[in-house]
Amino acid sequence: MSADELKTVNELLRAANAAVRPGSWDERRAGMEATLSVFPRAEGVALQPFRINGIDAEWQARRDVREDAVLLYLHGGGYAVGSIATHRPLTTEIAAGFDGRVLSLGYRLAPEHPCPAAIEDAVAAYRWLTDDQGVPAANVVIAGDSAGGGLTIATLVAIRDAGLALPAGGWCLSPWADLTQTSGTMTSKAADDLIITPETLNEYAAAYAPGGDVSDPRATVINASLKGLPPLLIQVGTAETLLGDSIALAGRASADDVAVTLETWPGLPHVFHMFAAMLGEARVAIAGATEWANARIA
Amino acid sequence: MSADELKTVNELLRAANAAVRPGSWDERRAGMEATLSVFPRAEGVALQPFRINGIDAEWQARRDVREDAVLLYLHGGGYAVGSIATHRPLTTEIAAGFDGRVLSLGYRLAPEHPCPAAIEDAVAAYRWLTDDQGVPAANVVIAGDSAGGGLTIATLVAIRDAGLALPAGGWCLSPWADLTQTSGTMTSKAADDLIITPETLNEYAAAYAPGGDVSDPRATVINASLKGLPPLLIQVGTAETLLGDSIALAGRASADDVAVTLETWPGLPHVFHMFAAMLGEARVAIAGATEWANARIA
Repeated sequence: MSADELKTVNELLRAANAAVRPGSWDERRAGMEATLSVFPRAEGVALQPFRINGIDAEWQARRDVREDAVLLYLHGGGYAVGSIATHRPLTTEIAAGFDGRVLSLGYRLAPEHPCPAAIEDAVAAYRWLTDDQGVPAANVVIAGDSAGGGLTIATLVAIRDAGLALPAGGWCLSPWADLTQTSGTMTSKAADDLIITPETLNEYAAAYAPGGDVSDPRATVINASLKGLPPLLIQVGTAETLLGDSIALAGRASADDVAVTLETWPGLPHVFHMFAAMLGEARVAIAGATEWANARIA
Repeated sequence: MSADELKTVNELLRAANAAVRPGSWDERRAGMEATLSVFPRAEGVALQPFRINGIDAEWQARRDVREDAVLLYLHGGGYAVGSIATHRPLTTEIAAGFDGRVLSLGYRLAPEHPCPAAIEDAVAAYRWLTDDQGVPAANVVIAGDSAGGGLTIATLVAIRDAGLALPAGGWCLSPWADLTQTSGTMTSKAADDLIITPETLNEYAAAYAPGGDVSDPRATVINASLKGLPPLLIQVGTAETLLGDSIALAGRASADDVAVTLETWPGLPHVFHMFAAMLGEARVAIAGATEWANARIA
């Protein structure tokens, strides 16, 4: 990582932070759209928006990929902001390396639609893929960043509990796994993290948590039993207040006998993958993860 | 993993457990030698015993490997038992996949030689490799299982503190990183672990800890600052009381901005790599780790 690359990334983080912090939820959503819309997308990836039972969705795929393999992507944004559009710089980079198609999902957001609305939408998309589209469950990987990383785990748990065939794996990018904000890195990494603070997390957690219970295992997924879940890949930067969430998630999942691969990336910020266009490590991390996903569906 | 494979492994674990549990330290050492000497070694790996400043050592290498790259291996056995000989089934399997030579080290054992004797021997071997033999530090990987995994971390810390050039990486197999036995898996995995219990660990910890202080950061390496350490690969089974040590080590190292890759292997026992001859996952894990080591020295 060059100092110039990190400086650019940090400038963008400060701008994004300024854009999404103040105002109403709609103003924050618009701010995030404006900030991230300037990021370039990966080339050679075609976009095809559509809807699944009224939920916004988008196919993102190279021309030559397998039709029978899908990476279901759940964007971040604290369960309250973010969209298919905000995450195209990241998801198209994934689509550029994944052997199948990426399905990016615009699940319903809090506070208008608190937990478990997002989980219901993700499971509905998974059912549509496997039941209606005939994609084998073993050819599906579910992935997501930040809140979408927690939602990835909650969705896998819901799929397990519904007795459905499990997907091939889950990939969590800087997951938000503990809505109670109890990890030590909440304070030890506070000075390194330009965007995530316990205060902002508490606000988003209150907006999403079912009945206001932030410890509910559907929201704080490290409180859930993760028995029987498929292999997980967790990637996180070490300049994150949420670093401890990834450690706790690895601990919870492995205690429940799940195959976990955890990667920590020194000095990098929350969801550093978003900066693929300007940060070499982001491209390396995404390439490694898509290689992992390709091996899972092989 | 087939049920037959795991059954064979568990029978061997019970035999090993019976062999090393009772009696004097010398009787336990002899028991471990007898138990593990029946395991087959990897083929095509030549052994060359020698000494480094009075410390037992052994080259283990394929015929065609690089002379300028070395994996320094530190065997397990609670810092008090185990040897170059007991670990040949594991270290020759590593040598079969590593692009350089394996240097297995017979460091001094407790209780005759408590901490930091083992660290001194490991650092002396590293200095001999890099100073006397001219192996570039960037072409050295340090690795070890169980106590040898903790010793790997303590050796890296000592190398850093001595101002020496750091090796390319550290690979910890089921590391014993917390001699105070505080992790939750000490109890939650007790029924799954056929060989490691807090009681046996406490006995070995008392034998090794400097001045009886089991929390000394040279012995309980999660109490050390790990700032500046090279990338770490940690592999651990989920049927281990020591699972939590790996999680805590990943947490400590990543909080100190180290690049960590943690892999958890469902249902597998402590240092499952030892069973490479009869357990497919052991071969897969070692192959993945030697691939990682080869990439580090490339």
